[in-house]
Amino acid sequence: MPATHDPRPIGVFDSGIGGLTAVRELFRQLPHEEVVYFGDTARLPYGNKSKETVTRFSVEIASFLVRQNVKCIVVACNTASSHALEALRLRWELPVIGVIEPAARAAVALSPHGMIGVVGTLATVGSGAYLEEIHKLAPAASVLSRACPLFVPLVEEGWLDHRVTHLVAEEYLAELRAANLESLILGCTHYPLLAPLLHELMGPGVHLVDSGAEAARATAQLLAERGQLAAAGGPRGPQHHFFLSDEPRRRSFGRVAQSFLGRPLPHVTVVDQTDLPWFERAHAIPPHTGGIPE
Amino acid sequence: MPATHDPRPIGVFDSGIGGLTAVRELFRQLPHEEVVYFGDTARLPYGNKSKETVTRFSVEIASFLVRQNVKCIVVACNTASSHALEALRLRWELPVIGVIEPAARAAVALSPHGMIGVVGTLATVGSGAYLEEIHKLAPAASVLSRACPLFVPLVEEGWLDHRVTHLVAEEYLAELRAANLESLILGCTHYPLLAPLLHELMGPGVHLVDSGAEAARATAQLLAERGQLAAAGGPRGPQHHFFLSDEPRRRSFGRVAQSFLGRPLPHVTVVDQTDLPWFERAHAIPPHTGGIPE
Repeated sequence: MPATHDPRPIGVFDSGIGGLTAVRELFRQLPHEEVVYFGDTARLPYGNKSKETVTRFSVEIASFLVRQNVKCIVVACNTASSHALEALRLRWELPVIGVIEPAARAAVALSPHGMIGVVGTLATVGSGAYLEEIHKLAPAASVLSRACPLFVPLVEEGWLDHRVTHLVAEEYLAELRAANLESLILGCTHYPLLAPLLHELMGPGVHLVDSGAEAARATAQLLAERGQLAAAGGPRGPQHHFFLSDEPRRRSFGRVAQSFLGRPLPHVTVVDQTDLPWFERAHAIPPHTGGIPE
Repeated sequence: MPATHDPRPIGVFDSGIGGLTAVRELFRQLPHEEVVYFGDTARLPYGNKSKETVTRFSVEIASFLVRQNVKCIVVACNTASSHALEALRLRWELPVIGVIEPAARAAVALSPHGMIGVVGTLATVGSGAYLEEIHKLAPAASVLSRACPLFVPLVEEGWLDHRVTHLVAEEYLAELRAANLESLILGCTHYPLLAPLLHELMGPGVHLVDSGAEAARATAQLLAERGQLAAAGGPRGPQHHFFLSDEPRRRSFGRVAQSFLGRPLPHVTVVDQTDLPWFERAHAIPPHTGGIPE
C-alpha cells in the first residue's frame, strides 16, 4: 500500500502566544507541515476563568480553525486542554490533541517510582486534570501539584533570570523540592522559558516535562499513524499563518514571541471583526439604546 | 427651589474586582446611594489589550448598566477610562465619569511645582492619557510615568507585604524615587492595596493619589450639582447589586474582594448567557460545522 499524505495545515491554538513553544516543537519534528496558529490575545489569560467560559472560547476558536481547513487541532493551552477537550471532541470528528495526556504519559515513563510534580496556572492545577490522567496510567503514582500564578507575568515581563523570579520560584517550589520527585510537568506553555531556573532549583535528578513539546510529539505520531503527514514541499517550504484576536500591545511583543518560537515570528494577522462570532455580535449593538430620561 | 433627588443607582464597572476600591469610596462618601457594579472577570485584564477591544468591551458593559437604569456610569478601570470614555460619552447622554481626569486634577492641586509621577498598567501608561490630562490643567508640569505590570498579579496573589513585592516595587520605582516628586498617581484600581509599601518607598513628602477614590469624589460632586443625589432611605439602607461575567475561580476571591471593598462582598450574580450580547452570539454557533472530509 502506498504511503498517503495530507497537505492540509495543523491547527494550533492558545490563549495567547505561549502556545508558540508547542509550534517550535512542531517545526522541529515536522518540518514539512504547515501550521495555522490562533492566539486569543483579546481574552487572555484563560488560567483564572471558569470551565464554561474557557469551553465557549475554545469552541469559537476551533470553529475558526476548522474553517481554515485544518486536518487536526492541537490545544496548546493547558487550561483549555483541562476544560474544553471533551467538548471539542464531541463537536468535531477531526483529531483534537491536548497537552495533558501526552505530558502525563511522558512523566509516567520518566518516573519509575511514580514521584511526579505538576506546576501550572490556578485553573490547570485546580482542575485536577493532570492528576486524573496520571492516575489512569499509573494508579499508584504520587502527584504533588502547585499553582504558580506569578510565573506567566514574570515571563511576559522578560524577567527570566531576575532575582525576583528566583525568589518567587523558591517559594512556589519549596514543597516540590523536598519531595524527591523524579519528574516535574511544566503544565503551562510559558514555563519552558523558565526551564533553566527550574532545572537549577529542582536539581539534575528531576526530569522537566514540557507539555507543549509532548503534544507536538503526540501529533507527529498520530499523523504518521493515520497516513496524514504532509509531503515534502518545494524550495519555499511550508507557509504558516499566525492569527491573533487583538493587536500586540507590548513593545516587547516581538522579543517575547521570538523567545517562545525560537525564531522571529512571521507576519501576524489580527482577525477582523467578521472572523469570530463574538466580534460580529458586538458590532450589532444599536447605538443610543439608553440615556437618562428627561 | 426644593432640592431634587434621583433614586436610580450609580453604575460602576471595571475589568475585574479592582473597581471595588472605587465603590468603597462611593459607600463612604454617598451612603444613601445604590450601586450596580459590573466586573468583566471573563475577559480581564484590560491592561494589555488594544483601544478597539477595550472600547468594544466597555460599550457592551455600559449597555448592560444602562438597561439596569443607572443614573450615571463610573468607569473605575483606568485602561477603559484611557481608551473608551469618549466612545461612551458619544453613545449615551447620561454622565460618564472616568478616573483619569479626577486623579489628574487632584495631583495638580497637590503639586505646587508640578512634579507628578504616574504608575499604572502598560495600556494606561502607554496611552499617555494622564500626561495629556495633567498638561491640560498644568501645561508646565513635569510628568514621569512608569508601567508596573507585575503589581496586579502580586496583589491578586495577596503578597501585599511580601519581600518579592518590595523588590519589584524598588525596581519599578527607582527613577520615580529619584525625581523629587510631589505626588504619585496610583493609576490602577489594584494599587491602593500597595499604598503602605508605596508610601514607605516614596517617602512622606509624596502624596499618593488614589484614582478610584478621586472618581468617587467627582461623582459625588457631579450628582450634587445636578440635584441627582438619592434621598436617605429606610432602615434597610440602599440595595447594591454586584455582577461578574465569570464565576470567581480563586479560593482567595472573597478575601481579595473584601480587601478591595473594605467589607465583605455581598451576594454576587454571574451574568447569564442572555445578559450580554457576546454570550448570546457565542451560543448561536451551530454544532458539527466541521470535521475532516472523508
